[in-house]
Amino acid sequence: MRPSIITLLTDFGTKDYYVASMKGVILKINPQCFLVDITHQISPQDIREGAFLLAHTFSYFPKQTIHLAVVDPEVGGKRRPILLKTRNYFFVGPDNGLFTWVGEKDGVDQVVELTNPKYFLSPISSTFHGRDIFAPVAAYLSLGVRPESFGKRIDQWVTLDWKRPEEKGKRLIGEIILIDHFGNLITNIEKKRFFSFIKNQPFMIKVGKKRISKLSQGYWEGKKGEVMALFGSMDFLEIAVREERAQERLKAERGDPILIERGE
Amino acid sequence: MRPSIITLLTDFGTKDYYVASMKGVILKINPQCFLVDITHQISPQDIREGAFLLAHTFSYFPKQTIHLAVVDPEVGGKRRPILLKTRNYFFVGPDNGLFTWVGEKDGVDQVVELTNPKYFLSPISSTFHGRDIFAPVAAYLSLGVRPESFGKRIDQWVTLDWKRPEEKGKRLIGEIILIDHFGNLITNIEKKRFFSFIKNQPFMIKVGKKRISKLSQGYWEGKKGEVMALFGSMDFLEIAVREERAQERLKAERGDPILIERGE
Amino acid sequence: MRPSIITLLTDFGTKDYYVASMKGVILKINPQCFLVDITHQISPQDIREGAFLLAHTFSYFPKQTIHLAVVDPEVGGKRRPILLKTRNYFFVGPDNGLFTWVGEKDGVDQVVELTNPKYFLSPISSTFHGRDIFAPVAAYLSLGVRPESFGKRIDQWVTLDWKRPEEKGKRLIGEIILIDHFGNLITNIEKKRFFSFIKNQPFMIKVGKKRISKLSQGYWEGKKGEVMALFGSMDFLEIAVREERAQERLKAERGDPILIERGE
Repeated sequence: MRPSIITLLTDFGTKDYYVASMKGVILKINPQCFLVDITHQISPQDIREGAFLLAHTFSYFPKQTIHLAVVDPEVGGKRRPILLKTRNYFFVGPDNGLFTWVGEKDGVDQVVELTNPKYFLSPISSTFHGRDIFAPVAAYLSLGVRPESFGKRIDQWVTLDWKRPEEKGKRLIGEIILIDHFGNLITNIEKKRFFSFIKNQPFMIKVGKKRISKLSQGYWEGKKGEVMALFGSMDFLEIAVREERAQERLKAERGDPILIERGE
Repeated sequence: MRPSIITLLTDFGTKDYYVASMKGVILKINPQCFLVDITHQISPQDIREGAFLLAHTFSYFPKQTIHLAVVDPEVGGKRRPILLKTRNYFFVGPDNGLFTWVGEKDGVDQVVELTNPKYFLSPISSTFHGRDIFAPVAAYLSLGVRPESFGKRIDQWVTLDWKRPEEKGKRLIGEIILIDHFGNLITNIEKKRFFSFIKNQPFMIKVGKKRISKLSQGYWEGKKGEVMALFGSMDFLEIAVREERAQERLKAERGDPILIERGE
Repeated sequence: MRPSIITLLTDFGTKDYYVASMKGVILKINPQCFLVDITHQISPQDIREGAFLLAHTFSYFPKQTIHLAVVDPEVGGKRRPILLKTRNYFFVGPDNGLFTWVGEKDGVDQVVELTNPKYFLSPISSTFHGRDIFAPVAAYLSLGVRPESFGKRIDQWVTLDWKRPEEKGKRLIGEIILIDHFGNLITNIEKKRFFSFIKNQPFMIKVGKKRISKLSQGYWEGKKGEVMALFGSMDFLEIAVREERAQERLKAERGDPILIERGE
């Protein structure tokens, strides 16, 4: 039989007992399941960043993988704990928008509010539902407990708005949505959108004071220190500098605008 | 059959070959066992921090889990390598106090000094017993080798003092014992102790120049930027700031005092 | 049956979706295999550092382990993707020198250029062959697909020069090749070389302005704050400071020279 896989995505970091205690709780319930870290370095309380990263990672895993995601600033407050079943995957975590784009991409089958204490640790702390609710629910799910056993089905859940690039005449205005480990600036301008906007015309990409008029195929293309625009592995327009960090080089920050100007 | 689980807790970080070589050694001896990282980011040589974290994590794992812990400033010196069996778990590492509180919590069954070279790598380096002694011993233990096979039973082992809060009249003086990934200040004042001290009277919590006169239920309760006192998931009094880092906000450091003053 | 083990060594860090998407791809193809991180914190684009670390880690794992290594500044360019089979292990990654020293240590059996798209994701991005080529190839290899199925055998592959210490009369000149998590300065002077050079004479080790005239057996030997020279667990001469970071204490950097002077 193939083992169940549970992935973990949190903003907990790896220096404390938070992640390990969740893993312990899971393995106590299902000692056979495989645990895979997506990341624990989501910026603290940054639901949007977590949602984005999860949406670009979940589908690489085998179908039926259970994705446990906890970026949870409202823990212990009114936000609901949920289980979201998409066509091919399961997601467990807080109902705060974290599952917005996985739902959009894979199609939502059902959403259950987690209310059945039979599948929680006891007592439940008011500060750490990752350990007390989400981890045990994910573990029982991996044992084959059916979604509806965890609570009542709900029809509404929280979703976030995706900041789409805006078109103003001959300008497309996007923004930097993520800066990766290499200091590459990942924008919200998707490949399709870019090409449908520029219509085979010449173009100019403006980021800070920098102007770029062509697309590169890969990081290797530039000379050392050259600022390049290219489409990265998630198919978003990305600004990179050969063997340097674009973030420092262009003094860029998340949220900074990026402009595409189309010629005639 | 359920797989054996070995956890790892070290101060080795994850950028070098230290942790990976330990995992390789274990898997060479028992390729079936599950490896789970607790953390590798214990502050370098900080036995006390390692002991504290281990004590709050070990019992979330399934019974019979083997916890391999290496914070080992005296490696190659006179400190002994040991295997400590508590009622429900196994611990392998240096005899320097790292197992003080797991022993207190779970009850010590037997302690064995690791002296049988049959279960060590050969030759043994004088700087890396994690790889040469502790990893192979944990691996053989996971295969069912009995504790007494690894060496001779001992009756004394190193324990650390736990810094308990001090009571002076109407003041309870504790300290910050850990600052977590979110910058929350975790103190050594336990929930039970706090409530038995304040005796239902009004109270004032003093940390640096900050005064707090109530307890919050969760991080969500405060307004953005509000300094709060609450009991965290380990049941210690904790100072947190909503969506900020209390550490920076209060310029606090580990070891700083925290005062509870009880009213009439 | 014992599970297949695939290790991962990259310069990707752990905050993005890079590593997790590779793991997902592998588990989709072979859900039974064990994944073990060597490290993801190789300095960005530093092939030499990756090659060095891999060479000191690979052989601790069980024979037949598949080591997937991606430090790949030329991704999408002309460098070839390869599979290198040594006597006891498999290596998958870019042909840029990353496998220089594992080949030297374990003996190269065969090298295959990865050209068979049957074992790649489709389409292949030009920026992330870790996910699109190397991960699926490693996964299929773990299922028993034979090396020659992935492409054509090649006779030449890229190797790096190892910077050996230079002997000039009574001086042996080495350099700092790695600074570890503890701030210890690891040099390229091997134990054997050191002793064959000093010929039982007194010696003086010079690093920056510091002079050291003896070898310590372990980190525990020094007084707090003492600068020591010793042979570390990889058998290279290493400069360490008891309970401090030699890196900061000596203001040392990778590449800095270290001198051994032999007396009469």
